[in-house]
Amino acid sequence: MDSVQPLSPPSRVLMGPGPSDVAPSVLRALAAPTVGHLDPAFLKVMDEVRAMLRVVFGTENEITLPMSATGSAGMETCFVNLLEPGDAVLVGINGVFGGRMAEVARRCGAEVVTVEQEWGRALSPEQFREAGAGRPFKLMALVHAETSTGALTDLAGFREAADEHGALLVVDAVTSFAGRPIEVDRHGVDAIYTGTQKCLSCPPGLSPVSFSERAMKVVRERERPVQSWYLDLSLIGQYWGKERAYHHTAPVNMVYALHESLRLVMEEGLEARFARHAKNAAALRAGLEAMGLELPVPAEERLDPLTLVRIPEGVEDGATRKALLARYGLEIGGGLGAFKGQAWRIGLMGAACTERNVVLCLSALKDVLASQGFEAKADPVAAARAALG
Amino acid sequence: MDSVQPLSPPSRVLMGPGPSDVAPSVLRALAAPTVGHLDPAFLKVMDEVRAMLRVVFGTENEITLPMSATGSAGMETCFVNLLEPGDAVLVGINGVFGGRMAEVARRCGAEVVTVEQEWGRALSPEQFREAGAGRPFKLMALVHAETSTGALTDLAGFREAADEHGALLVVDAVTSFAGRPIEVDRHGVDAIYTGTQKCLSCPPGLSPVSFSERAMKVVRERERPVQSWYLDLSLIGQYWGKERAYHHTAPVNMVYALHESLRLVMEEGLEARFARHAKNAAALRAGLEAMGLELPVPAEERLDPLTLVRIPEGVEDGATRKALLARYGLEIGGGLGAFKGQAWRIGLMGAACTERNVVLCLSALKDVLASQGFEAKADPVAAARAALG
Repeated sequence: MDSVQPLSPPSRVLMGPGPSDVAPSVLRALAAPTVGHLDPAFLKVMDEVRAMLRVVFGTENEITLPMSATGSAGMETCFVNLLEPGDAVLVGINGVFGGRMAEVARRCGAEVVTVEQEWGRALSPEQFREAGAGRPFKLMALVHAETSTGALTDLAGFREAADEHGALLVVDAVTSFAGRPIEVDRHGVDAIYTGTQKCLSCPPGLSPVSFSERAMKVVRERERPVQSWYLDLSLIGQYWGKERAYHHTAPVNMVYALHESLRLVMEEGLEARFARHAKNAAALRAGLEAMGLELPVPAEERLDPLTLVRIPEGVEDGATRKALLARYGLEIGGGLGAFKGQAWRIGLMGAACTERNVVLCLSALKDVLASQGFEAKADPVAAARAALG
Repeated sequence: MDSVQPLSPPSRVLMGPGPSDVAPSVLRALAAPTVGHLDPAFLKVMDEVRAMLRVVFGTENEITLPMSATGSAGMETCFVNLLEPGDAVLVGINGVFGGRMAEVARRCGAEVVTVEQEWGRALSPEQFREAGAGRPFKLMALVHAETSTGALTDLAGFREAADEHGALLVVDAVTSFAGRPIEVDRHGVDAIYTGTQKCLSCPPGLSPVSFSERAMKVVRERERPVQSWYLDLSLIGQYWGKERAYHHTAPVNMVYALHESLRLVMEEGLEARFARHAKNAAALRAGLEAMGLELPVPAEERLDPLTLVRIPEGVEDGATRKALLARYGLEIGGGLGAFKGQAWRIGLMGAACTERNVVLCLSALKDVLASQGFEAKADPVAAARAALG
């Protein structure tokens, strides 16, 4: 074959739905010398990763560890470990990732009942109460922060709804982890998963999960083995736990990067980090609205790390995103599912969540929209500045 | 929690069963700036990765791509995509990884017939012919290079054996890929998987797979959906193929590292790379035997990238490996399964497969064994040098 040149990726500003910009020290950690997956030096890294994951999840769960695959595998981990064929599950769908949960549950042989909600809106415990009334469910699942719409569902009240059904509570925290409070133990969540490439600002490749003791009891007492050997938590827990039993070869360098990205979260402090995400998101929204753009998600249900913006009439989706990338090296996300071609998704996650990026994005978008004949109603940067105070 | 220090992993020489030492340029590629998984710059990297994987696999298979998880997930990819409940499969077991294949197939609901072979020995097509005589099988699976024993099975003749059973041929090439010829198309292999952390000398985290058109026809004509959504090749092929349809967020930086490690293979040339592995393995074996150590695998069935050495009587497994790590930062592997506590596994893979490492390993092992009262019969370095010529 023709000779292949060494790669030389461009420098982007990543303000899509993830991956987000990665901090320099995380990239350095990623490139640290590889050691064996049972090296004493690596076992220490693993223990520190688990301790820090517990802090960010807000849990004391023993089984808290990163799965060796991306966020979607974390989703699958929750379902394959907890479900057996014929189990009934109740899944909330208010976007792509709720729909994916239902699909994954079906592939486990589960009988899936869905709780449908308009895309761009939050789910409520009442919807789950009503949808499942009168029958038991093995588990109940919902997305905390819908990456496809930027809608945030408050987790309060879902534990009680799950209890009414005798159900385990499973939550997708892919886009909220390290950007919004999660508080797994306080909300009584039984199984939760996330990805590394959103508010944690680590490259994609790992999926931290946490399982409550109640959930692990279900895993231990299964009738059939977990249908996925690779994602079987009863085996993986023995590698990350005291036994250090070999299961698969851990992705050592990715775990290094996760360690450093979590360390940066600890250094900043959770409250300060959440406040930073809230403040910059407020500024971004103020700027977008000042330009005359519409934000489809109601104000009280908006997710700080990801903002949905309706594409104005007469403006082309693809041309706009291409121009942002070409002129500014700026990536924003297109719409998914019901919002495909209808909306953009602008991320402010982790290391990318800065005043600089708010101002860059607003200015670049104003410029590119002007090329397509869309005139901003007011100066978005001034509005953002006013919101930042 | 207590403040966590930035990680600072020690510099090791990785001569276990993998991960192996990673070349500096691969670590640099790993730390290149993250871009989006649909960024035009990344799509080019993906295409080049696929083209280079085809060269190393020795195939024209359209579906040739890295799965976003480690080697064991590559194994699972082969079975979950090809099997449906009730299918009959024939699996060769001559070590841990054959056993794992049987386990994964069972978790797909398959009826598994095993072909048992002594650990440390190769499998033969005749065994598969006899074991499965008189009935059809959906697939037939074997390990090319058993990472648990260092035994290499010649792939010649297995296509014909599979044809007698009307079976697809599935091969584990985790420890042979880029260290030994594989020649997927010539041997009529239908589905094959490997890992990145062996002879490719890329950090662990991805699992390249290749599926023949015949295998993909089976995937497309399935009655039930693949039980793993994450590993469903009919979906993943649409992201790596022309459609570029979003499935999951690709582990961008790991794909960078894979690109660079494959590029180094192309630069060296396959034949030169195989010759380097063969030459250094011969020197290592000569040195080990000169010391009076026993190599349990028969000479004609030995795998160049990984050598099994019996632990001499009176020598402690754990103490020896700990001393090698403490004195020399040198990692060799312990035994697995039938060889646990009975043998070591010494890897010479990819960037770690050098004359320097052969001499270091022999000298360090001689030193550490002497501390435990085992006296080398002859000078291993002189023997290795003689073998190197």
